[in-house]
Amino acid sequence: MITSSIALLDFLLETREHTETICKPLQIEDYVVQPIEDVSPPKWHLGHTTWFFEDFILKKFKDDYQVYDDHFAFVFNSYYESMGARVVRTDRGNLSRPTVDQVYAYRKYVTNALTALLEENDTDELAQLIEIGIHHEKQHQELLLTDIKYILGNNPLLPTYSSEFQEFKLNPNPAEWLSIPEGIYEIGHKGDGFSYDNELGLHKVYLNSFEISSRLVTNSEYIQFIEAGGYESVLLWHSEGWAWINDNAIKAPLYWHKNDNYYEYYGLNGLQKLNLEAPVTHISYYEAFAYAQWKGLRLPTEFEWEVAQSQFDWGERWEWTESAYLPYPNYTKAPGALGEYNGKFMVSQKTLRGGSVATSNYHTRPTYRNFFHPQLRWQFTGLRLAR
Amino acid sequence: MITSSIALLDFLLETREHTETICKPLQIEDYVVQPIEDVSPPKWHLGHTTWFFEDFILKKFKDDYQVYDDHFAFVFNSYYESMGARVVRTDRGNLSRPTVDQVYAYRKYVTNALTALLEENDTDELAQLIEIGIHHEKQHQELLLTDIKYILGNNPLLPTYSSEFQEFKLNPNPAEWLSIPEGIYEIGHKGDGFSYDNELGLHKVYLNSFEISSRLVTNSEYIQFIEAGGYESVLLWHSEGWAWINDNAIKAPLYWHKNDNYYEYYGLNGLQKLNLEAPVTHISYYEAFAYAQWKGLRLPTEFEWEVAQSQFDWGERWEWTESAYLPYPNYTKAPGALGEYNGKFMVSQKTLRGGSVATSNYHTRPTYRNFFHPQLRWQFTGLRLAR
Amino acid sequence: MITSSIALLDFLLETREHTETICKPLQIEDYVVQPIEDVSPPKWHLGHTTWFFEDFILKKFKDDYQVYDDHFAFVFNSYYESMGARVVRTDRGNLSRPTVDQVYAYRKYVTNALTALLEENDTDELAQLIEIGIHHEKQHQELLLTDIKYILGNNPLLPTYSSEFQEFKLNPNPAEWLSIPEGIYEIGHKGDGFSYDNELGLHKVYLNSFEISSRLVTNSEYIQFIEAGGYESVLLWHSEGWAWINDNAIKAPLYWHKNDNYYEYYGLNGLQKLNLEAPVTHISYYEAFAYAQWKGLRLPTEFEWEVAQSQFDWGERWEWTESAYLPYPNYTKAPGALGEYNGKFMVSQKTLRGGSVATSNYHTRPTYRNFFHPQLRWQFTGLRLAR
Amino acid sequence: MITSSIALLDFLLETREHTETICKPLQIEDYVVQPIEDVSPPKWHLGHTTWFFEDFILKKFKDDYQVYDDHFAFVFNSYYESMGARVVRTDRGNLSRPTVDQVYAYRKYVTNALTALLEENDTDELAQLIEIGIHHEKQHQELLLTDIKYILGNNPLLPTYSSEFQEFKLNPNPAEWLSIPEGIYEIGHKGDGFSYDNELGLHKVYLNSFEISSRLVTNSEYIQFIEAGGYESVLLWHSEGWAWINDNAIKAPLYWHKNDNYYEYYGLNGLQKLNLEAPVTHISYYEAFAYAQWKGLRLPTEFEWEVAQSQFDWGERWEWTESAYLPYPNYTKAPGALGEYNGKFMVSQKTLRGGSVATSNYHTRPTYRNFFHPQLRWQFTGLRLAR
Repeated sequence: MITSSIALLDFLLETREHTETICKPLQIEDYVVQPIEDVSPPKWHLGHTTWFFEDFILKKFKDDYQVYDDHFAFVFNSYYESMGARVVRTDRGNLSRPTVDQVYAYRKYVTNALTALLEENDTDELAQLIEIGIHHEKQHQELLLTDIKYILGNNPLLPTYSSEFQEFKLNPNPAEWLSIPEGIYEIGHKGDGFSYDNELGLHKVYLNSFEISSRLVTNSEYIQFIEAGGYESVLLWHSEGWAWINDNAIKAPLYWHKNDNYYEYYGLNGLQKLNLEAPVTHISYYEAFAYAQWKGLRLPTEFEWEVAQSQFDWGERWEWTESAYLPYPNYTKAPGALGEYNGKFMVSQKTLRGGSVATSNYHTRPTYRNFFHPQLRWQFTGLRLAR
Repeated sequence: MITSSIALLDFLLETREHTETICKPLQIEDYVVQPIEDVSPPKWHLGHTTWFFEDFILKKFKDDYQVYDDHFAFVFNSYYESMGARVVRTDRGNLSRPTVDQVYAYRKYVTNALTALLEENDTDELAQLIEIGIHHEKQHQELLLTDIKYILGNNPLLPTYSSEFQEFKLNPNPAEWLSIPEGIYEIGHKGDGFSYDNELGLHKVYLNSFEISSRLVTNSEYIQFIEAGGYESVLLWHSEGWAWINDNAIKAPLYWHKNDNYYEYYGLNGLQKLNLEAPVTHISYYEAFAYAQWKGLRLPTEFEWEVAQSQFDWGERWEWTESAYLPYPNYTKAPGALGEYNGKFMVSQKTLRGGSVATSNYHTRPTYRNFFHPQLRWQFTGLRLAR
Repeated sequence: MITSSIALLDFLLETREHTETICKPLQIEDYVVQPIEDVSPPKWHLGHTTWFFEDFILKKFKDDYQVYDDHFAFVFNSYYESMGARVVRTDRGNLSRPTVDQVYAYRKYVTNALTALLEENDTDELAQLIEIGIHHEKQHQELLLTDIKYILGNNPLLPTYSSEFQEFKLNPNPAEWLSIPEGIYEIGHKGDGFSYDNELGLHKVYLNSFEISSRLVTNSEYIQFIEAGGYESVLLWHSEGWAWINDNAIKAPLYWHKNDNYYEYYGLNGLQKLNLEAPVTHISYYEAFAYAQWKGLRLPTEFEWEVAQSQFDWGERWEWTESAYLPYPNYTKAPGALGEYNGKFMVSQKTLRGGSVATSNYHTRPTYRNFFHPQLRWQFTGLRLAR
Repeated sequence: MITSSIALLDFLLETREHTETICKPLQIEDYVVQPIEDVSPPKWHLGHTTWFFEDFILKKFKDDYQVYDDHFAFVFNSYYESMGARVVRTDRGNLSRPTVDQVYAYRKYVTNALTALLEENDTDELAQLIEIGIHHEKQHQELLLTDIKYILGNNPLLPTYSSEFQEFKLNPNPAEWLSIPEGIYEIGHKGDGFSYDNELGLHKVYLNSFEISSRLVTNSEYIQFIEAGGYESVLLWHSEGWAWINDNAIKAPLYWHKNDNYYEYYGLNGLQKLNLEAPVTHISYYEAFAYAQWKGLRLPTEFEWEVAQSQFDWGERWEWTESAYLPYPNYTKAPGALGEYNGKFMVSQKTLRGGSVATSNYHTRPTYRNFFHPQLRWQFTGLRLAR
């Protein structure tokens, strides 16, 4: 819990500003498009994170609050069914208006109103909601950056986002197996710090002894899988994974371009030769699983990961686990619309642990649970083996 | 045929400029989106009409011509299969790059190159191709304007394109039936003026005597059809028209908004009360047909229309005819890629005659044949009865 | 018009019996399946032609008529929207009940009731409706046979329908061009004989002089088109035809099986080597058109065909024409539900002329207009050239 | 493990016969259809269970084995990608051949060959494979019965399968909460008896204390959920569950027919008034979850269920659990094609525990793990609450 409203205000302002910093390299046109359903236009992220503050906080805490524009709730609501009608997700890229300038003006208006509100109200209730709003915006910062990558990286001109952006740092240490003994372990968030409801419900799990790799699988290792015919070996794949690679003609991770003798890779710093020692990324759960099958190994569960994580470096790639994204024992969702935040997605998705080069600071932690459908690849996903 | 290359150059420059004038009221964001497959982003029209000149003329007539950007052929080719790979139609709205500024620079570069070319080459062959390019661009000017209307008119903010734009002028004359006697008539384009290949092949048709209305059907008349239950009366509709209105929950023309007691209409000059005396527009062929059935009348054929057209005013609405879009006797398509212009669409579409408030000057004529699939409504279509 | 009710009864009974004769070679299982939407289960044809008599005639003319089973109207109505709810077309193959035995019992019950009715009522009104019912059933006889061919010919076991069935007879005469002079011709049905509403409205058309082939295109000729790369030459195809062959990986007519050195063909008499001199069949309009383009020729219009037909043999293959299926001048559809018979399909389809080896006797004539969507191939379609 | 080959032969023959007994009430037509992708034609189950014995056993153990029909592997292979090409799942209902008689002859041929084989070979290896084949067939017996229910229960004639079939027995005891203390429990199959690979890997889990209901939720209780607006309350549903009920207009369990004042229910014994005290069935996981949410309770995990199951009656309804269907620790799949049996489905599905009135004898046990996608309802699913 943030202890003072001044610190909270700083945290808020810094977060609001960082969102806009991420967009600095963009052209106006880049803010508008939605090449696939999972990717939202940058403009939409800018507006949606703002609407969240307006709708859940300003309308509630300021009696005389003047909504910036009545249409914006319709345009920028994402999925809060209980908050009224909204633009269907697949239509986000069809909206040229409001313009980017209008959205920035909307951001400024709401940030100013939040600042004024925080100066006159220092209740815990407000502080808690502001904190949720900040973390909500940080979560969208990661999506914003990965959505920008998708928009630019699927454009035939392959424009560079920023030549300074580093998607990985090379790890000089060799991979080793870390051993964790059998036993009862505690899982879940504890302490005062911020967490989402899906991390709460501290509880015990029983783990068999296992070993987990100290390093992520690298591009070089993944190429061996490709060259050994991994994408053509049906027995390595889940039934729906096999259908997915065949229906979509998948032969390599996303953003890989095969040339005669080598692979190129589109990174936020542009198209370049694939770095063989970098951790493989932009793979689906199906691919992570098939790779592990091919090695005769497996993915860790999210509990194994949480128990072992202090013994290895993490944070460059979101790591697919074998666990399904399910409620912890005694999970209870928040009352009202905020209760839609996490619980409604707890079916048919896999849990990922860790964080990525696109994750904002203060946004991940050892108990953080990310989740995606098993075929999705546009995040900086990765793969760590266990046995 | 344009008789001098100076006149041709003027015609070219005026046409190139007019395209840009149409875009003047747009925000950059408006240039980018593609809300439905049939609508292209304005940016794409600007680039495609330019690519057409570059690919069919500059590359052919200027030996040392330097292509502006190698990627643009891929981005701006529309459907000329024989001219190589291209962005699939449904992906046009996913492209944020090239930017609008880059597209305008591309236009300038190509217009300048065409100007220089025309100053040094006055062959008939070049003049003919330039003329095709001009008419191609004029054709896209109409699509550009109707696509802009779709983009703005389907945005929840309903922005106005231009408060001065008039979509109709009121016709003070009452409707009358014009009688045309039975006999043999000549159909098709004659003379030196420009026409497309699909108008050529002057030929005779035999027409029974018929009557055709001097006026288009009005909004007021169309409301009677709606209120009489036209959209719920299966026997008025083609089988596939009935499926279409039901699958899409169609209850009125496009851009109509039903309020408690009246209809509002989104026009290029903004949302306003529907003018009852204006000609009905934005209807599909299915709706035009069902209306005629309900009146116990019919649509004219395109031949009847061509024979009768000198006796009535036309040009505000493209008029659906009962005719399918088919080749005239002795139709021959142009050799090479230009042969893809018209002939390849001569199946499953209906012919429309006339022109519309969005049609550029010098672009329509009594023999002009427009064509669309029967369900399309985003053009300024209309309806004239015959019997 | 049939002149006596005895002759009419004979015609009816013979027709009813012939439908069942067509089904003689079937196993019960063959009656049930619907491999594609366009193909109906044989059981459905047996029931639907019976329901037509029950619903349009028996219920109208017999006051005390006892409907055989109340559910059958729901099961066997095809598309008469005005006659109430019905099983959607794509679900016909999901119905195991009523059983084949029940459907035959239903047929017998209705045929007996019709016999009794004809013995007590000799009005013209009844006779006309019976005649429509007979021709409706004959029309379904052709579909029944071609649907059976599809069901058996797409089964991996490729069972033979009847080893005696001859799909063609060899024509010993060489192809010649028949010349028809320019002029005004009369089109449409005349005289007392039966015709559908879509053939009526005798009217004049003006034809340019043209030539038409005395023979259908043969398999041997069509193979030349394939071997010359016809299916890979985009400029020969309509835009939607090109999409269709590519989306469906079409490389040859339906029922052709390519072996190393030759084609096999599945006919109603089983799988065998393709007869090179037989007329090509089971081609779409798109393929017919592309073949003609490749030859530098064209398809005749339906008017040209009708005017020339007395000078050549026809009746083995339905012949694609260049004409769209549209109403003749002064076309009026029958009142009430029978009006749904033809008119509602007069959009987006092509006209075929002639008849086929699957056409029942007395069912085609020089003015008969068949119609299908341009991609359909499961009928015995064919191709005659004009120029 | 079955201890003698005579006992094994008896078990085999009894199983083979029971499959055919299930089909006794069918008409031939009922064997053929596939109304939805998840439902296979009864004929296909008869053939597929036979092909399994032929392909995995007879071809392997009998050198001179004569395959019954070479086409049948293509027709009756289900999903064993490693065993070669096969009819795609959605096409199973398009196959009228082989006929039902041929399939029964095939069954007899293979059963006889298996009998002869067992008489001459008493190796453990054979016995184990036969046992798998028996359990495979028992698994299909349940699908066969529920597929038959779907085929008949979705036919507009609603034919009865068997008037003697009882889908439930009334439970006279009131519901109570059973308490299980916190602690470490062992999960998984032990002992010599048959089990599938997905039950193996005996392992410990740590459970919090919990309570589980001694009874399944009844129709009467479920009606309260419906009448309280459960299907209209977005906050009770998963995001994809909400989309599913709305896209499919789901308002009640499958096979419920709403009348003016009460519900009717289609059971294998025909359509009748819904028994209010019977356990609710034919619900999706989404509905089970929403019901529990509405009660402020939850579903048990599969581990809780396994630990508590000895304290309550079960076996009438497969019970949805909150658990995802995932591999147990140290899960290893069988080598070769048999390895495709379970593991390839371990993503995106939910685990069900228990058994149902359609489950064959000896086929379920406390450790048995059934699994389906969360929207499926055609099995006899049910719902037990926990807290």
